[in-house]
Amino acid sequence: MLPSVSLLDSFQFSQFTTLLVIYLVAITAEAMSGALAAGRRNMDIFGVSVIAFVTALGGGTIRDMVLGHYPIGWTQHPEYVYLVISAGLLTTVVARYLHRIKRVFLLLDAMGLIAFSLIGCNVALELGYPPVVVVMSGMLTGISGGILRDVLCNQVPVVFRRELYASVSLAVCLLFLGLRTMEVENNLSTLVCFAAGLALRLLALHYHWRLPVFSYQQRWE
Amino acid sequence: MLPSVSLLDSFQFSQFTTLLVIYLVAITAEAMSGALAAGRRNMDIFGVSVIAFVTALGGGTIRDMVLGHYPIGWTQHPEYVYLVISAGLLTTVVARYLHRIKRVFLLLDAMGLIAFSLIGCNVALELGYPPVVVVMSGMLTGISGGILRDVLCNQVPVVFRRELYASVSLAVCLLFLGLRTMEVENNLSTLVCFAAGLALRLLALHYHWRLPVFSYQQRWE
Amino acid sequence: MLPSVSLLDSFQFSQFTTLLVIYLVAITAEAMSGALAAGRRNMDIFGVSVIAFVTALGGGTIRDMVLGHYPIGWTQHPEYVYLVISAGLLTTVVARYLHRIKRVFLLLDAMGLIAFSLIGCNVALELGYPPVVVVMSGMLTGISGGILRDVLCNQVPVVFRRELYASVSLAVCLLFLGLRTMEVENNLSTLVCFAAGLALRLLALHYHWRLPVFSYQQRWE
Repeated sequence: MLPSVSLLDSFQFSQFTTLLVIYLVAITAEAMSGALAAGRRNMDIFGVSVIAFVTALGGGTIRDMVLGHYPIGWTQHPEYVYLVISAGLLTTVVARYLHRIKRVFLLLDAMGLIAFSLIGCNVALELGYPPVVVVMSGMLTGISGGILRDVLCNQVPVVFRRELYASVSLAVCLLFLGLRTMEVENNLSTLVCFAAGLALRLLALHYHWRLPVFSYQQRWE
Repeated sequence: MLPSVSLLDSFQFSQFTTLLVIYLVAITAEAMSGALAAGRRNMDIFGVSVIAFVTALGGGTIRDMVLGHYPIGWTQHPEYVYLVISAGLLTTVVARYLHRIKRVFLLLDAMGLIAFSLIGCNVALELGYPPVVVVMSGMLTGISGGILRDVLCNQVPVVFRRELYASVSLAVCLLFLGLRTMEVENNLSTLVCFAAGLALRLLALHYHWRLPVFSYQQRWE
Repeated sequence: MLPSVSLLDSFQFSQFTTLLVIYLVAITAEAMSGALAAGRRNMDIFGVSVIAFVTALGGGTIRDMVLGHYPIGWTQHPEYVYLVISAGLLTTVVARYLHRIKRVFLLLDAMGLIAFSLIGCNVALELGYPPVVVVMSGMLTGISGGILRDVLCNQVPVVFRRELYASVSLAVCLLFLGLRTMEVENNLSTLVCFAAGLALRLLALHYHWRLPVFSYQQRWE
């Protein structure tokens, strides 16, 4: 039933198998985080599947819709859809053990954030958008899956409050764009972005770095 | 002020007047369910109109945006817009009597869910998308209007928790795709999908069937 | 780094510098209202930037996505992105003084609502959509930024409950369409819409006019 399109052939980073593998790991990790959020709201297994799907592939979907980039990625890759829904459902079985591998999970999540951001930048670059849109496309891909997850679970999105989560995406996008402007070779540039992004995210987690918070409680009436 | 386009001519299922009638009944029923949800949040009549519109036509809008299917359906059918807003406003007048026809309402709602799902499948098929996208397009059309309604009313979407609501959509889409693969004649296939979908939904309502719920309350900190 | 496209050249109302200035004032005021809402939820400065951006430019983005109008406005105007994010961040500094200029703020906000509505109508007209879509495009541009802001801040959208906010947008769109049908000259028509819209909004604020509220608390079980 699958279309005869090789996953590798059509992937926009076909030259790096590494980035594809990281991407697959990333959408799996995001799908699992979505499933856990659905479980906190006592959803049924259908709700779990939807939230897993939206968390993993929603960011890319919104990016493609904003940039007018059709057909949208996952519609050409049914295997991604199966992967994220399977990951979501599997999570309902193994959930009780997941907190034991919390560190692994956070690492995968950070790698996913960086992979998503780089892929988002690349899509906008290939479509010829100006630099500010390239950066926003990277961030949109990186963080809007998590925003959708939180909106559907009826809570204020954590990315607006968590340790430098979105800031890592921004830093990676800016670094990527800077390296590209300096005509650094593509593989090297990806590697540097990954190293810097991971370091920043892990340091932020370890030292609980946060951005300044804006608290405004004044009533106007 | 209406464009001179006949409702029947341009409807994608022009061969079945029946499905069109069911579709019109469906968007009316969905608009009314939206209006009731808005009333539970004490919205003004403008809010009622918006929620009625979004519940009835939002699913098709999201589907068309995801599939890149422009122009979006209702922009070519102003009469749909008038119909759903009128239904929403009328609901504010007759709301007190609606619970007396609860069974009729649930039946119309189930027919709407099935009609939406079949229409969604067909749109994706005509655009040449792979089978998994066809199924997701059907489900997106069937359930995302209700999801939007609940997000705008600031509550966790009920379709993630209600008796087999989304599952009926999934079953109908899979059945439709299966019958099509076996080259069953189109009218017969639609009829079978309706019968099976209605039976499943009504049984689920009667016996309070539910999908297994995933409940996860562990804190990681 | 900015593309060499003059802000004035490509603006769809190039003939009215006035409307462009009002548009810039409007997105600034909307960005500030977004930042204040983010502050009420104790977001970090990244969250403030996102909510400011979404409140100011989200309405136009949704309109363009619904109408299939690509590329989306702000992707061709990086300066708008810088403007709204700067306005959002600046708000965190000056927030404590803003309630003193409440009247100015409400005036700017009303002007923004009208400017957004007129721009939305014009975009749909240029794409050849039927009248009901023109009106909905205007309203979508005028009010959906505020709806997105409230959904992301996890509250029931205030536009569904506030003093004639959305109704002003509707009135302006209908008036604009009516004047156009009567072939009133464009500049005059814009002026009349502004005067009427501002008057209606300010009267509604002063006298606390509200639409009738629909309150429905009946449980069906």
